[in-house]
Amino acid sequence: MSTETSTGMSKVTCDMAMSLDGFVAGPRQTLENPLGEGVEERLHSWMFDEPEAHADVIHAITDAGAFIMGRNMFGPDRGPWDLGWTGWWGEEPPYHAPVFVLAHRPREPLTMKGGTTFIFVTDGIEAALERAREAAGDRTVAVAGGAHTVNQYLAAGLIDELRLHVAPVILGQGERLLAGVGSIDLEPIAEPRGTALVTHLTYRVPRRS
Amino acid sequence: MSTETSTGMSKVTCDMAMSLDGFVAGPRQTLENPLGEGVEERLHSWMFDEPEAHADVIHAITDAGAFIMGRNMFGPDRGPWDLGWTGWWGEEPPYHAPVFVLAHRPREPLTMKGGTTFIFVTDGIEAALERAREAAGDRTVAVAGGAHTVNQYLAAGLIDELRLHVAPVILGQGERLLAGVGSIDLEPIAEPRGTALVTHLTYRVPRRS
Repeated sequence: MSTETSTGMSKVTCDMAMSLDGFVAGPRQTLENPLGEGVEERLHSWMFDEPEAHADVIHAITDAGAFIMGRNMFGPDRGPWDLGWTGWWGEEPPYHAPVFVLAHRPREPLTMKGGTTFIFVTDGIEAALERAREAAGDRTVAVAGGAHTVNQYLAAGLIDELRLHVAPVILGQGERLLAGVGSIDLEPIAEPRGTALVTHLTYRVPRRS
Repeated sequence: MSTETSTGMSKVTCDMAMSLDGFVAGPRQTLENPLGEGVEERLHSWMFDEPEAHADVIHAITDAGAFIMGRNMFGPDRGPWDLGWTGWWGEEPPYHAPVFVLAHRPREPLTMKGGTTFIFVTDGIEAALERAREAAGDRTVAVAGGAHTVNQYLAAGLIDELRLHVAPVILGQGERLLAGVGSIDLEPIAEPRGTALVTHLTYRVPRRS
């Protein structure tokens, strides 16, 4: 499948694991539980408990030429950032590509093992996307999260393909996806499918004028 | 399939058409557009545009021995109620069974053509469910809506089977389903399926102690 859009620019995708009531993270986020207590298990168990059943989905999530993530997804705002925080993912993060981190404060790029480089961008979501497109070449650019970052890109009409992985869970509170993005009609581009742990939904997001 | 639960009581189901961001109705509800302007078309087009593709789903929605609905779903609060309002559904509503309407003010039962009787219950959701169970016998009791009513029954742990019909639409605002119901782990009991207009998701809601 081509990653090119009709404009010749690389496709912008977004994969998010979401609760049935629209949350992608819970309250009470800590260093031990970055998504909030118990939320990792409830939203992402399909990835860990049955990776074979979702192998293609899991592959697609990290199959991009460049990534964009919010600063909150990269790491906590205080302390660790200044103390040489290098992300949640250990020495060899699963991205294997440039990851553009939306930051408030400048920081030198951080080169990790396996091809991942965290590059800190302080001039906004459109500048970050432009740089990610350049880095991705003809491959996909993936907006990796979190909720606030995805919502900003959706609101700006900059995501082409939204892939939601809906866990059979009502969280009741937390960080809400699809909030503040206005009114959008999407186009399903794959059959819904899943297991007892998750339902995969894939939509094309129409370009808005 | 049996409609009996292990306790011998009839199963309580709930079918709701929902946007991807969790709304079942929009703002700006009027007599002409009871779900809000343009929302009927965006959430329910699958029922009207391709009824054959969803024949079993549509059949199941009204295949109950008794129904429960909120007063706001039955009709506007002012004016028409006092002027002999008989619901949105014409002389022969599609329920063909007793419909218990959660009301603030008492009103005589309203017998319509085709077996539908609207019965106004002023003593709360549990009393309404008890009466609906009696009326349904061994058939299903369906909580028909709207959002506030469904959320109340979910919060009280009184719904056994939640069937969501998710339209590929982000509404951005309106009446939110699954809000204020706490934290619940559901159990998918059917494969997700659908068309370009809707995805059907079916969950068992565990009884909570």
